[in-house]
Formats: sequence, structure tokens, C-alpha cells
Amino acid sequence: MNDRRIGIIGGMGPEASADFYMKITKRTKVEKDQDHFHVIVDSNPKIPDRTGAILYGGPSPVPEIIKTARRLGQMDVDVACIPCMTSHYFFEEIQAAVDYPILNVISETAAYIASHFPAVSKVGVLATSGTVAMKIFDKYLTDVDVIYPSPGTQEGQVMEAIYGKKGIKAGFLEGFPVAQLVTASEELEEKGAELIIMGCTEIGLALQQHHVSLPLVDPLEVAIQRLIGKDDF
Amino acid sequence: MNDRRIGIIGGMGPEASADFYMKITKRTKVEKDQDHFHVIVDSNPKIPDRTGAILYGGPSPVPEIIKTARRLGQMDVDVACIPCMTSHYFFEEIQAAVDYPILNVISETAAYIASHFPAVSKVGVLATSGTVAMKIFDKYLTDVDVIYPSPGTQEGQVMEAIYGKKGIKAGFLEGFPVAQLVTASEELEEKGAELIIMGCTEIGLALQQHHVSLPLVDPLEVAIQRLIGKDDF
Repeated sequence: MNDRRIGIIGGMGPEASADFYMKITKRTKVEKDQDHFHVIVDSNPKIPDRTGAILYGGPSPVPEIIKTARRLGQMDVDVACIPCMTSHYFFEEIQAAVDYPILNVISETAAYIASHFPAVSKVGVLATSGTVAMKIFDKYLTDVDVIYPSPGTQEGQVMEAIYGKKGIKAGFLEGFPVAQLVTASEELEEKGAELIIMGCTEIGLALQQHHVSLPLVDPLEVAIQRLIGKDDF
Repeated sequence: MNDRRIGIIGGMGPEASADFYMKITKRTKVEKDQDHFHVIVDSNPKIPDRTGAILYGGPSPVPEIIKTARRLGQMDVDVACIPCMTSHYFFEEIQAAVDYPILNVISETAAYIASHFPAVSKVGVLATSGTVAMKIFDKYLTDVDVIYPSPGTQEGQVMEAIYGKKGIKAGFLEGFPVAQLVTASEELEEKGAELIIMGCTEIGLALQQHHVSLPLVDPLEVAIQRLIGKDDF
């Protein structure tokens, strides 16, 4: 059982990668160590910032991501996943560089919402400004309206929660970042969102279902269920 | 900064490996993703059980551990660590199979106790029966008395906490396993132990300092501070 070898193209950021690996382990039904999947994590923090590249002309992360993906290919993974939503902007280029399948977290999320929330017509997304500007979720969620916080809330609340000095990437998972994300969620609800996608890996480290009234969908949880599920790739 | 590439020879068990990787990430002082260490985890759950091999003539874990260590060598790690105390029984054989340094968790712990608890002369160890029988801690902690639970407590409490149906390797981290480990700790205190080493990776997932009165030393925390510290290997 569970003889699939799963690769994690990680480091974007490292804490989100560690959390993703821990959740794969916790979600897998086992009685002993040997029942687990073989997981290989390449947590490469030298990958340049994805939002910086997309929005501000910073160095492209693609060469380092591809190096990491190819290292995992040398380790004979059967499938891999990138636990970083923003990096899915470059998905096709990364997939083309390796000969094993990479699970697309965003298209899996679109399929999950269509099957689990068929009545929902408007979806709010909390994500980095790079993901927002590049309309990464819009590209795959074609059957629903996709809405985002106002530009002021996006920069002042969402990005501060993720990148700020008291933010998630600096290691703070309670207090400040949660308050910022709740404010943004309430704005999305006022604008008619019926569910909220946690569209950046880090957000799910801080924001919990009990903090907000709308259903929260975590694309990484959707991806994990697919990675450890019965269906082949 | 932080340009060391750290390998984790993992899967013994997978949850302990994930916890070790998460702690490396959390303990590293950073302001942004790029400040982290490059960490590569090979979580190979197909490694046969270490205690089973040492005590009950089960298949040796060494060939699979060496395969895993060599895969990490191909990934050009600068140093690696095995977050499994029992496997240190085979340490020399594993180290000899690769040309990069592997941090020995047990000898690091001995050095840590000598420098941080110089007045302590009797140390209690909670560990798997494999680790106990093979006297893995006795081999390195030569300046102090090393004591263990009675055979009945070792099998009935410690091993049940780790391997039982409601135990840590089955995913239970509260309630039953904590109660079992507290009983064993109290026995060690009655026998004169002045501190307790959590001598199996899984124990630190359940037992916390506030559960017991003696100081707890977690060899994995000792190892992490060394891995992310300034000194070279």
C-alpha cells in the first residue's frame, strides 16, 4: 500500500513546505511507519520571491524551481506538488521541464469547488498581490465569479499579514496576521463572496475556520487529499 | 548567510522527520524565505523497523538507510542528520557509506549535558527497548550514570506509549501516551535520576516539560541547534 513516491518542490516558503509535509503525514491512515508514503522534500529557499518577479521585475524564480524539480526527478518521484500558489503562474514552464506529473493545486481546487459547492457562484480569494494581479485563480475558476479585496485592503491588510514585520513569513501565526486577514475576509463577504479560498500557502498557517463565517477552502488540503488518494496521476 | 545544505535521513518515523524539519525552519532566525537553510528531506518509510531488527531478528534497516543517505549525497548536502535515536546503533556503518558528515545526535547530547548540567551525575533515559537493550546512550554518556525504567515499565508503559494502538506512532500525541510516559518518568525520579533524556524521537512529540518535574533534554533540539549554528562540520 501507499507505494507512491511524492516530491515536494519546496522552500516557497520553507514553513509552508514543512507544514505541507507534516499534513501529508498526518492525513495518511497508518498503523506503523512502513504504511506511509515515501516523501522527498527539496526545500530550496534560494528560489527568488515569486511576487517580486511577477510584479516588480525581480529575478525570475523559474530557473531555481526547475533545478529543484529536476533534482526530485533524479530521486524518481512519481508525482510532485508545489505548495506555493503564486508559483503556479509559471506552472506550464515548470511542468514542461520534467518528465513526471506535477499536481496543479489551482486546477484541483477549481474541480473541488465545482463538486463540493455546486451552488456557489461568487468566490473570494485571499492571496499575494502577485497572484491577484496575474489572475491565477481566474484562469482556472471559470464557472464562478472570482473577487478580491480592494487594492487598499490587499496591500494594507493581506500583504502585511503575509510579508509584514509581524507577518506570517517572519514567523508570526497569531494576533496581528489573523486580525488583518479577518478584516479582508469581512470585506469579501460584504461584496457577496459565498466562500473564501486561502490562495496563498502562508494564509492557512494563521487563518482558521473559526475566525470567519464563510466556508474556507484551503487549496493545499485539496491537493493533499489528491496526493494521498487512490487515483493515479 | 545560512548557505549550508542540510539533509534529513528521514522516515523513522515520518511524523518525527516532519517535526524535525519544521523545527529547523522555526528555530532559524529569518526575515524572509531566502534567509532559510536549504533542507532536503528523504522520508523513506520503507526502512524496516529499527527495534525489530535489533531485538527480534527482523530485517536490517541499514541497506535502506544507506540508500537514503546516498540519495542525499547525490543532492550535495553538506551535513545530514538521522532524527531517530534507535538508528544510531548503526551510526558508524551509515557514516562510512557516505563522504559527507552525519551529525551524531547521541554524542552531541552527551556534550550538551556535560556543558549545561555539569553537576548532574545520574541521567534517566526514556527510549525504545532497542535503544535500551543496545545501551546506545551508555556508549556516549560515559561521565554519568545512565538508568532506565524497570523491564515491566519499559514494555508496559514506554513501548505502549510509542507503539501501542493508542500510541504515538499511530498518531496519538495526547492522553494515553503522555500518561504512560509520566509514570515512567516518576519511576526514574524515584531511582535518583536528575534529568531525563527523551531518547526516542517520538517521545518529544507527546511529552512536554510541564508534564514532569525533572528537566527534560530532547536530543533532537540539541541536534537542531548544532545544525543551524555557526560552527562548521
